[in-house]
Formats: sequence, C-alpha cells, structure tokens
Amino acid sequence: MTLHDEIFEQAAVLRRLQQNQMRQVEQIARQIARLDPRYVFLAARGTSENAGRYASYIWGARNALPVALAAPSLFTYYKQPPKLQGALVVGVSQSGQSPDIVSVLQEGRRQGCPTLAITNAADSPLAAAADFVIDIQAGAERAVAATKTYTAELMAMAMLSTALSQSADERQTLELVPDWVAQALELDETIARMAERYRYMDRCVMIGRGYNLATAFEWSLKTKELTYVVAEPFSIADFHHGPIAMVEHGFPVMAVAHSGEVFDDALTLLRRLRVELEAELFVISDRDEALALAQSPARLPAEIPEWLSPLVAIVPAQLLAHHLTLAKGYNTDQPRQIQKVTETH
Amino acid sequence: MTLHDEIFEQAAVLRRLQQNQMRQVEQIARQIARLDPRYVFLAARGTSENAGRYASYIWGARNALPVALAAPSLFTYYKQPPKLQGALVVGVSQSGQSPDIVSVLQEGRRQGCPTLAITNAADSPLAAAADFVIDIQAGAERAVAATKTYTAELMAMAMLSTALSQSADERQTLELVPDWVAQALELDETIARMAERYRYMDRCVMIGRGYNLATAFEWSLKTKELTYVVAEPFSIADFHHGPIAMVEHGFPVMAVAHSGEVFDDALTLLRRLRVELEAELFVISDRDEALALAQSPARLPAEIPEWLSPLVAIVPAQLLAHHLTLAKGYNTDQPRQIQKVTETH
Repeated sequence: MTLHDEIFEQAAVLRRLQQNQMRQVEQIARQIARLDPRYVFLAARGTSENAGRYASYIWGARNALPVALAAPSLFTYYKQPPKLQGALVVGVSQSGQSPDIVSVLQEGRRQGCPTLAITNAADSPLAAAADFVIDIQAGAERAVAATKTYTAELMAMAMLSTALSQSADERQTLELVPDWVAQALELDETIARMAERYRYMDRCVMIGRGYNLATAFEWSLKTKELTYVVAEPFSIADFHHGPIAMVEHGFPVMAVAHSGEVFDDALTLLRRLRVELEAELFVISDRDEALALAQSPARLPAEIPEWLSPLVAIVPAQLLAHHLTLAKGYNTDQPRQIQKVTETH
Repeated sequence: MTLHDEIFEQAAVLRRLQQNQMRQVEQIARQIARLDPRYVFLAARGTSENAGRYASYIWGARNALPVALAAPSLFTYYKQPPKLQGALVVGVSQSGQSPDIVSVLQEGRRQGCPTLAITNAADSPLAAAADFVIDIQAGAERAVAATKTYTAELMAMAMLSTALSQSADERQTLELVPDWVAQALELDETIARMAERYRYMDRCVMIGRGYNLATAFEWSLKTKELTYVVAEPFSIADFHHGPIAMVEHGFPVMAVAHSGEVFDDALTLLRRLRVELEAELFVISDRDEALALAQSPARLPAEIPEWLSPLVAIVPAQLLAHHLTLAKGYNTDQPRQIQKVTETH
C-alpha cells in the first residue's frame, strides 16, 4: 500500500524540507522582496491548485500579497495572455511537467516578470522556466493520489512566508509542524474504524473556511479520486446561502473547524447542520465544541496556530480517503481512469 | 412561478441594459483606461462570483487584464487585507448588501485604488463604496435563485470589455445577444420533457472550460439550490485527471461544449465519457458532433462567438434546473433553508 506509506512519510518529508531548504528559501525571499511585486499570479492544477488556495491566504494575510489564481487556458488555448507587469509569476506542480503551467511561467518570463517554481522535480521543464526554484524534495511519489507532495508544497509556501516576514518566532513555530503531523498520524486506527460507517456513501460535501478552505478542497479531491464518491468542497461562507438546501436528514458533511478567526462561524454552521437539519458530521478540529457535534470526530493536536493548521488538518482527511477506499474495495494506489502526471495543454 | 418568469425576462433585461447603460459604461471605461490598472481584484459570492469567473476570461483574454478573485475573509475575519496598489477593485453583488463584498471595496478605496460596483441596486452600500457604478437594471428579482441578474452581470462585464477595447464590431455583436437568448428560451418545452429523465438523479457533475467554465459553475449552483442534487462543477482540464474516476455506467455529466478554442478538448472528453465510460450526457452546444453524443442534447443558436456564448449557454441550464425542480416536486421560488440576500461577514 504505497499510498498509506506516503501518507506516513509526511512528518519526515516536512522536517527534511525545512532542514535542507530554509536557507535557499530565505535567499529567494530576499530577492523577491527587492523586486517588490504588486501581486502573485499563480498557476497550478489539481492538488497543487489546492496548495495555491493556501498561498492566497498565507501570502495575502501575512505578507500583504494579493494572489490571483491563473486561468492557464488564456495562455494555451486562447493565446491571449494578460499583461503581467508587476506580478510575481508562480507555478506549482509536483512533476513540473504540465505544459500549461510551464507555459504560464514562460510567458511571465517573456514579459520580464520574476518567476518562481515550487516543484518536486528540480530538473523539470517548470524549474527550467523559473528564475527561482523551491525543490520540495518529497522523494518519488508513486501513488496516483498526491499526499506528501501536497503538504510539502504547503510547507514551501509557509517557509517563503516566514522568510518574507523575517520573523524568528514564526520560523520556530514552523519547526513544530512535523511533530504535529506525526501526532495526527496516530489517528490512523481510529479513522480506519470510522471509515466503515461511510461504506455506502455515494455523495457528500466538504466545508472549510479561510486557511482551511484549501483543506476542504484537497479532502474533496482525494475522496473523488480514490473512492469515486461525489464530494464537493465549499467555503462555509458560500455554503450558507444556496448549497445548504441540499442537506436533509443523514446528509454527510465533512468539515474542518480549526481554532482561529473563522472558528465561531464554522461552529454556528455545524450546530445548524446537526441540530436543525440532522446532518451526518465528520469533523476535523482541535476544539471540543466542534468535535462534540460530530458522529465522527477527528481530534487534532492542541495549540497549532491557524495559519499552519492546513498542514496538519489534511492528515485525517487523507487517512479517511485511504480507509474509505479500502472499505469500498477499490485500489488505493491506482485509481481507475487517471494518470499521475498531468499533461493538460 | 416567479423563477420561470424571470428566466423569460432575460432577453428584455439584456436589451434594456445595453440601451440604457452603454454610454455610462463607455465613460467608466475611459476613466479606467486613464488609470491604467495592473490587474483587477474582484470580490463576489455565489452567482455573482460565477459572473466573476466570466470576467476573468473576458477581461483577461480581450483586455489583457489579469483578474484575482478576492478571498473576502482576509478583509473581514482576518482583518489583514493585502496591499492592493495597482489594482482596480471590483465588487459584484445583485443586492449590493453583502457586508464582506462591501468591505473589500471600502478597503480598496482606503488604499487609494479605483473601485467599481456592478449591482442591481444603485442605492446600495456597495454602490456607495464605489467610484464607478454599473447599474444592471434587471428589475426586482423575487425568486431566491438568481437568473436574470446573472446574465445581466455578464452583459455588464461584456459591455465594459468592448468599451475598453473600443471596437465598434464587438459592440454590434453584443447587440445580437438578446435575440440569441430569446432563441434559447424556445427550448423550454423540449427541456421540460428532458427533465423527466433526471427525476431520480441525486448526484451529477457539470463540466465546461474557458469562457464557459462560468456556465458550468452557475449551472451547478442553480441545480444545487433548486433541486438539492449534489452537482459539482469542473473545468474540463481538471476533470481529466482525478475526478473522472467517479464516472461509471450511467453517471450523469452535464456539459457545455461551445464552438471555439476549447471545443476540440471538450469533444474529446465527451467521446471518452460516452463511448468508453458509458456516461449519461446532457450537452448544451451549437455543434452537431457534441450534440450527437448526448442522450439529452440542447442546441444553441448558430454563430454565437465564444466570448459571448456564456450569456446564451446558461439559458437551457436555467430551464433544466427549473423543470427538474418541478419534476422532483419542490418549490422553484423558495428553496428550503436559504434566503435571497447574502449577509456574510
């Protein structure tokens, strides 16, 4: 079971990435700070796009950098790329092979913008098209569903953020993440038991907000890829008006509700879902009030700051996707109909 | 049936908007051109955010303006708004009441950025926070599910695009849209019959790409709000790798495949879905090759250019959401659990 092994490699991968690459990231941050970009134009697909959602919060809130997620087809199909003057152009791709992501970086460079690649393949076309490369050094990822490269991409983004803000405190906090991930991995057996309950689930929603909107999206993607359940991610803000109409007795809602600025909002929605609408709740949280509302509670370690919580909160979600795949009798390492490397143009 | 009436008002609403507001939009365009923004920072939720997806293609491809979709919680919950220097800050909201969208515009103004509101309420807090206002003049929208304000928002965005590019040809083409919409509305009875087939559908996906990614998202949102079906939208590019794993015999895929740069890519996926994976296809298209693959084909008028096709392609999708709601025995004007005006903070 390669997928399970790779999920369990994450604590070590994140520790290695910090140890080997922090100095390089600090150099990159100094050069980026000197270039003083107005905003970030970020191109990515799939799991890496979910990492990009995290970037839009961490770089937005902590580094005052607005992040625009690119529409790569403007560069490839329409061949009418926008003017990128003032942008730091960032490409995120595990393999570094996706032609459309590479073409966004090439266009950025052609227009004279600074370009940054975040990739697991330092000798890839994406890295070759970039001025700056953060090699996430996650080791070969063999399972089709990406897990350790997702958390490593988040870590690279968090490292760049702390390097840009030059905060020694933040950098120390970052060093605690591998231990928190190791603690979250201890949920493995608990979640294997919980997964049984969802054997016949064929649709659900994932909800999160703020930093953990990325977690909801990535939880959803793993679930769809591996278990073939229709699993749509929502911002809690958007779910309130409109999509909540779907919820009836027993409707499964998978939620991330971590301590922080958006927790009260999440808790209000969870109460309404459980008490008023009689939803089924799988909740990933560090807080008793939220966990108590869930039929299936997954408790995170205490004292993780919200801005780093997505690196830990995704772990129980990955474990659930894995164990639900087994419960449903599917192949965790080679889902049907999909390939590892994205060849989108 | 207010919803049905409002769907049918769309041709008249779009004609009125062009006639009454084109001059105002041209004035706004001249002032924006003078300010020469580096990029657009756009805040919106729900239906209006789907209109924002269209803006990111039309302003990106035709006006070379990159569009960043805002994360409003950075402004409200986290209170750490990014630096918006160089941005044109745009808020889109039918009611103009959403506190989080208003706060993005207020912050933009505080930072000295030009601000634009696109709204159906010229006396709203959103309009008051903006330097420039495009009043979409769609008339009161009473159904909870927005239809005419969506197409009117798209029209406002297309009008601004043609005003920025100062193309008389494009402006003339724009005037054809109300007639195309009227033709698409003639599908009403056909789609009422087709809707029967989906009476027991409880999950599906919507797919589109490029300009019509917005259509897939809006189709999905109407379906969720009204019919309570779990209906997730995907870019065709993303659907290929990952989510396609969900598709098995009979799995319902709702697709928009309009002539244009991304059509071949859409057609390739539709063939694979129908022939290899035996999916159920509802296809909105102007092309025989795509329609022939569908169990349920909805034919659009010929000769609509791709950049305007989202204004017409959404009409059969709205009609399907309406008729499927009736087939399932639900209330089309007042879906359960949701309100018209978004009060997100």
